[in-house]
Amino acid sequence: MNRQLVLKTRPSGVPTGANFELVERELAPLREHEVLVRNQYLSVDPYMRGRMSAAKSYAEPQALGAVMIGATVGTVLESRSERFSPGDAVLGMGGWQEHSVFDARESGPAGLARVDTRRVPLSAYLGVVGMPGVTAWYGLERVLEVREGQTVLVSAAAGAVGSVVGQLAKLRGCRAVGIAGGEAKCRHVVEDLRFDACVDYTRARDTRALAEAIEAVTPGGVSALFENVGGRLLDAALTQMNPFGRVALCGMIAGYNGDAIPLMNPSRILTARLRVEGFIVTEHRECWPPALEELATRVASGQLVYRETVTKGLERAPEALSGLFAGRNLGKQLVDLS
Amino acid sequence: MNRQLVLKTRPSGVPTGANFELVERELAPLREHEVLVRNQYLSVDPYMRGRMSAAKSYAEPQALGAVMIGATVGTVLESRSERFSPGDAVLGMGGWQEHSVFDARESGPAGLARVDTRRVPLSAYLGVVGMPGVTAWYGLERVLEVREGQTVLVSAAAGAVGSVVGQLAKLRGCRAVGIAGGEAKCRHVVEDLRFDACVDYTRARDTRALAEAIEAVTPGGVSALFENVGGRLLDAALTQMNPFGRVALCGMIAGYNGDAIPLMNPSRILTARLRVEGFIVTEHRECWPPALEELATRVASGQLVYRETVTKGLERAPEALSGLFAGRNLGKQLVDLS
Repeated sequence: MNRQLVLKTRPSGVPTGANFELVERELAPLREHEVLVRNQYLSVDPYMRGRMSAAKSYAEPQALGAVMIGATVGTVLESRSERFSPGDAVLGMGGWQEHSVFDARESGPAGLARVDTRRVPLSAYLGVVGMPGVTAWYGLERVLEVREGQTVLVSAAAGAVGSVVGQLAKLRGCRAVGIAGGEAKCRHVVEDLRFDACVDYTRARDTRALAEAIEAVTPGGVSALFENVGGRLLDAALTQMNPFGRVALCGMIAGYNGDAIPLMNPSRILTARLRVEGFIVTEHRECWPPALEELATRVASGQLVYRETVTKGLERAPEALSGLFAGRNLGKQLVDLS
Repeated sequence: MNRQLVLKTRPSGVPTGANFELVERELAPLREHEVLVRNQYLSVDPYMRGRMSAAKSYAEPQALGAVMIGATVGTVLESRSERFSPGDAVLGMGGWQEHSVFDARESGPAGLARVDTRRVPLSAYLGVVGMPGVTAWYGLERVLEVREGQTVLVSAAAGAVGSVVGQLAKLRGCRAVGIAGGEAKCRHVVEDLRFDACVDYTRARDTRALAEAIEAVTPGGVSALFENVGGRLLDAALTQMNPFGRVALCGMIAGYNGDAIPLMNPSRILTARLRVEGFIVTEHRECWPPALEELATRVASGQLVYRETVTKGLERAPEALSGLFAGRNLGKQLVDLS
């Protein structure tokens, strides 16, 4: 038997367990080329909220009645392909279910990939050595094109992406400044992740106060902004950008559960001659091999540290997802299906 | 005697004649290296509004009590430099006054330059073969990097910059679509400037209607947006951008006389993976020679047409400036000082 979470209704506002249905289905015998995987960890990511809406964005919406999409890592139980053997540690888009069946001939995003758990732990392939890590790498290297000595500002600095952004920026000789919610996260960002500073946005009563708090820890201004949140964090950050600064728009999670949040002063982009660029990391497959190689090497050597917030049990995946929007996670949010 | 307009007070809202004072001052005898110019035309440009505010933007504010800045063309009356002779047609930042004195040793933006009036008329050096023309050229070539077959959308399409953007885009094999205010301007944009289409924003009751009007004339979507206006024109245009489209933020005149106008849906930049870039043409001096060469050649050959709105008399310069914000000009707004 396989337990699955299927999307039952589209959420208005923050998704809850009521939007999903837990179903049990019998696993069919494998056909030729198929591989059965026991999923051990499920990735929970902000992008999932967009897929749950009916509106077409850069990707098609998640279908109602189908297993909720998502990346998974696990172990091959049974294989009718020569490419995989029982016991192999694997990564794929297994979805919100305990077992997944893959076609071994499939390559690319929909395919199954073997991962090396001697080098880095299995769960890290969903985070620091996975999509979130590559997102950080791509934004820094290819959108912001940061150079030594620059100040890089990143919001959601204690999250799966932001935590990697700042650490990679430091490794490139930049000054890294984070924005995060709450004293504990900010302490983690500075003490564990070794950012130069971190601004607690919960302590700033308005955009102006937040701008001043950023200004206080970026004496040379901000050359590059890696934006994960949007809303007033973006408004405040833009006021601190140096002329010709760059902004990588990676996420705008503040607005994912409601109406779009306006950018209060877009003319700042003009007067400061900024370049603001949105990107979706899955569209830049050519960058994944060099990014993953650097990320794995740096994790293995201890230069890149990471945290995980692990929620236990498939039925709690919706709760883990809603936690992202409340900022309840530190580092990568996972669901443990074991 | 020299008549001058000096900035007396900083405007709130649209500038008026009351912000200026007309003064008469005796011209001092020229010193060595100085050149006396009788200004014939004064350029009136949207950027002047920003300079009239106390807030530092990309440039220092216009000083109170000083002659209002601005580009001028005219004729050398007297010269104590070997570089200029009486009768020379010249271009410089002469300011809002009938006569200006230049130091002939000065080069760059603050210097005086001889222009060839056999090739193009004197006044064109303030418009199509001047800063507005180069602005169009730079935005298209270096920010938007347009390619044959793309659809280029430009707001304020009947203005000094927008009119050149669309014509240069057509000459590069693009589809050019304008946005302008009123039926007469739209007809001019299509019939005289030969854009493929022009949307009259005054006929759209809201952002959505404007977006639909743009959509109706851009069946393949918009690859490149040259933005001169901001506000709801920008909101509407962004909804019609193709994935990976580019936006050159050249001006946001809709907001120059009041509070900043928010961008209603900045997450569109992310979901459509847009690149939005602000620029100031005077910072890219290396592009002026090739740009001016193309512009002059195309004007001389008749491939590039232009209109001028000429207001007569120095004392009416404030009225000409405020007219820009009301959209009263067609093409380049000039003041005739002769």
